[in-house]
Amino acid sequence: MASYTPPLERLIEELKKLPGIGRKSAQRIAFFLLRSDSKNALALAAAITQAREKIITCSLCNSITVVDPCEICSDPERDRERICVVEEPFNIHSIERTGLYRGLYHVLMGNLSPIRGIGPDELRISGLIARVSSGGLREIILATSPTTEGSATAHYLTEILRQYKITISRIALGLPVGADLDYADEVTIAKAIEGRLEVK
Amino acid sequence: MASYTPPLERLIEELKKLPGIGRKSAQRIAFFLLRSDSKNALALAAAITQAREKIITCSLCNSITVVDPCEICSDPERDRERICVVEEPFNIHSIERTGLYRGLYHVLMGNLSPIRGIGPDELRISGLIARVSSGGLREIILATSPTTEGSATAHYLTEILRQYKITISRIALGLPVGADLDYADEVTIAKAIEGRLEVK
Repeated sequence: MASYTPPLERLIEELKKLPGIGRKSAQRIAFFLLRSDSKNALALAAAITQAREKIITCSLCNSITVVDPCEICSDPERDRERICVVEEPFNIHSIERTGLYRGLYHVLMGNLSPIRGIGPDELRISGLIARVSSGGLREIILATSPTTEGSATAHYLTEILRQYKITISRIALGLPVGADLDYADEVTIAKAIEGRLEVK
Repeated sequence: MASYTPPLERLIEELKKLPGIGRKSAQRIAFFLLRSDSKNALALAAAITQAREKIITCSLCNSITVVDPCEICSDPERDRERICVVEEPFNIHSIERTGLYRGLYHVLMGNLSPIRGIGPDELRISGLIARVSSGGLREIILATSPTTEGSATAHYLTEILRQYKITISRIALGLPVGADLDYADEVTIAKAIEGRLEVK
């Protein structure tokens, strides 16, 4: 018995393809799926299949959805004069949880990354330009991550969108709430000082 | 949008049930499954379903198998006078990889654990006793883990099996190969000294 029985070996191989799952974790999960209630394992299989069958991409904002346009794009209550640009569909969820933003979104599906061969054509930038040039917008909020790639993407979009008469803003960089100044890196502190707001 | 679209939320919920997978990992895996090739995601779903449908428990040793009795139990080449007792089916794989043991196995499906309410009746001990009392055995190797629970289980089995005229052995406890004596705990060192073998 050099390896496990074929159906188990196949399950371990498929699980190993998931992000953050190595051989040991895949084995543990596979044995868990075999030992747990059969209903649980089959529910997971069904959830994967259904998610792949039902979930589509919104043709306007590129977010994931079961209806096109998505719930946010088709919501008449949302502020249609603002678009918040994010990297990935799950970033929308993080912003929505704040309850602070009522505008629309645009998902780029990644960041510019010359090293990984991701240029402007690999991102959903043309759709964003089409939305901006069709008019009616007042503000574009660039909410890509404050990483090298996210900042480069924000910078690139600023250059591209500068020609349109709209406000372009970038989410604030600074100390996260609850952080200790002692443990913050100097770049973050510098950004926090640069971005300081007058106390009124 | 308080939460994700229902099919995605369901997928995240099912993934969260897996061992070692929290909300964040479940989200990451779910988005990976949505973004990756549809074939990959459906292959995982099929692997889970097939594993549950095809894999059964060997009626002799309790290992997982697609045929009953399992490949090891039905292999005429194996030494049928020895049974190695392990906690879980995947322990068999670890021992088989050494290539050193050619006997049979018996899976207990766990360890004695009064705290978790696992007594002798919850383990597959009666099947082991039936195999021992049917005769033809020379040795039982207790290969439960050297944890409190594994050791208690080994001790319990020793008491139960003492009445049969067979050798009962316990896998050696000592320093793992490659370990530094400086970093080993005193219980392991004590076991290594107790279990010392004469150099011939």
